[in-house]
Amino acid sequence: MSKPVVAVAGATGAVGREMLKTLEQRDFPASEVIALASSRSAGTKVPFKDGELTVREMTPESFKGVDLALFSAGGATSKTFAPHAVASGCVVVDNSSAWRMDPKVPLVVPEVNPDDVDWHTGIIANPNCSTIQMVVALKPLHDAWTIKRVVVSTYQAVSGTGQKAIEELDRQVRQMFNGIDPEVKVYPHRIAFNCLPQIDVFSLGDYTFEEIKMIKETAKIMGDESIKVTATTVRVPVFYGHSESVNVEFEKPVTAGEARAVLSQAPGVQVYDNPGEKMYPMPIMAAGEDEVFVGRIRQDDTVDNGLNLWIVADNIRKGAALNAVQIAELLLKKGKLKV
Amino acid sequence: MSKPVVAVAGATGAVGREMLKTLEQRDFPASEVIALASSRSAGTKVPFKDGELTVREMTPESFKGVDLALFSAGGATSKTFAPHAVASGCVVVDNSSAWRMDPKVPLVVPEVNPDDVDWHTGIIANPNCSTIQMVVALKPLHDAWTIKRVVVSTYQAVSGTGQKAIEELDRQVRQMFNGIDPEVKVYPHRIAFNCLPQIDVFSLGDYTFEEIKMIKETAKIMGDESIKVTATTVRVPVFYGHSESVNVEFEKPVTAGEARAVLSQAPGVQVYDNPGEKMYPMPIMAAGEDEVFVGRIRQDDTVDNGLNLWIVADNIRKGAALNAVQIAELLLKKGKLKV
Repeated sequence: MSKPVVAVAGATGAVGREMLKTLEQRDFPASEVIALASSRSAGTKVPFKDGELTVREMTPESFKGVDLALFSAGGATSKTFAPHAVASGCVVVDNSSAWRMDPKVPLVVPEVNPDDVDWHTGIIANPNCSTIQMVVALKPLHDAWTIKRVVVSTYQAVSGTGQKAIEELDRQVRQMFNGIDPEVKVYPHRIAFNCLPQIDVFSLGDYTFEEIKMIKETAKIMGDESIKVTATTVRVPVFYGHSESVNVEFEKPVTAGEARAVLSQAPGVQVYDNPGEKMYPMPIMAAGEDEVFVGRIRQDDTVDNGLNLWIVADNIRKGAALNAVQIAELLLKKGKLKV
Repeated sequence: MSKPVVAVAGATGAVGREMLKTLEQRDFPASEVIALASSRSAGTKVPFKDGELTVREMTPESFKGVDLALFSAGGATSKTFAPHAVASGCVVVDNSSAWRMDPKVPLVVPEVNPDDVDWHTGIIANPNCSTIQMVVALKPLHDAWTIKRVVVSTYQAVSGTGQKAIEELDRQVRQMFNGIDPEVKVYPHRIAFNCLPQIDVFSLGDYTFEEIKMIKETAKIMGDESIKVTATTVRVPVFYGHSESVNVEFEKPVTAGEARAVLSQAPGVQVYDNPGEKMYPMPIMAAGEDEVFVGRIRQDDTVDNGLNLWIVADNIRKGAALNAVQIAELLLKKGKLKV
């Protein structure tokens, strides 16, 4: 079997760099890997394997001869360039929100709905980072006991916003510790030693787009409109790793022990739940890891068949780069990538 | 009217210092203010008004001639010394968890259940910080629409743990920025750039005591066992100000606009909810303020009569020192303090 030519579009960003690292770590069978970015970044180098790739400017012609493109270049860039890539015969796995709710575009988490890649017509969307880790943990529970309603509150790392936000948290902390007023550039307010209850812009009913994404994407990925989700999404001063406090109400009776047993067998999940030993998931332990960590599993007696969960994952890996590469691997495995 | 002699027990801690500041700021009518602490701190000075108070060692005899004692010295100290204070004819307002669930001890938030001070027998308990700010916001909503169920996830500042935890977050950040491994002393894990889903120790059903406090104290303060509360409490790398994501289900239909209108008139509450202008409560704006700030008020259509709220307050002020001083003011106003 010949190996695909792979392009990473948006290769200089936090997720783009992690995509390259993930392709390398998982030894993805590419005949060539091309790094693409905006004209501003063209000519810069990004690390890959033992050497570097020189970043090329992304143009409509960039995708000729490319079999697979992993996009992480923002919604507008994706809207512009993904159709060119598809027209060139390339399959696009897109990390932006541009195509996620398009009925012609599958929205895929390989542990949850792998078969949705089958009906792609050129573009497959990678879900929002907060949604991915939640559905990886909820799918096996839904299969076992049928979820009725989810109330989720998030604790999201700055890396979800990108490289500039990582630098902003770092810079603000240094400025404060040097007695300088922290500059606010990326977020609407200071993030250092603060919680920001706004992720993305406000929309219908005063919910943010991030909250609406968690609600709508969950239904699409799980293939079940009957699962009700309400969300409050919050940015916290953490560099890597999103955490989620998730309250779930099921159709059928479930105990914390039964949920723990099911999750222990679930793909992509690691149960980390030993309160007596002070073992529970935390961003600093999830950072750099592939798994979705689930702990603080407790019965909630304020509702019939209720559970509380605490779900943590590396938002840049499983929440973005890794999930995209896993989709690519799935395409290869299923023979859905023409080379 | 003669003015009471007031003692602050635990005067060198984060809350004790704030109690002294609050007595000063509110011009509490004391004839004398005495600072008490353990033998370790005896002889040190704490700032008060234009000068300083010399800290005296707390002994069973310390409370002779004292009319009112504000305790913030930990549960064990409170268990030992509060009875001596009461035996000396002193009224104790205690900030520890030692007496909160004692049926002979009122648990009071002045905006919520002021008349519970009437049946005190010497000790009045100050609720847990996370509980105080939640009930201040929920009481007016409960009066209007009757709360059935609350799902709360907290984002709690390190100052809730005390002065040593404030120093720990500060020290860990400095160490990390200087390339040194951060020392972990106060918390079970690193708090800098992390989220810790454990506050207090684990207990029944793998809930922490902090979570159980929020559940039980809410019922006692609201005087209504029918309100169901489930909680997940989390420490975040913030110095001052607890935040709470609160999902509420009511008996009666309610809109976000109606809730906003009721909260706008509620004592101790400030509605701060203008998403279009990026105005919502945050720890950095609540720090140093007396009010409980409520924003992100949204209808939750996943349940009948549901609302989502985001509640933020200064955990050291309204969550501890201010509430204690307000209880003292209430005692004076009601003539419940013999001087």
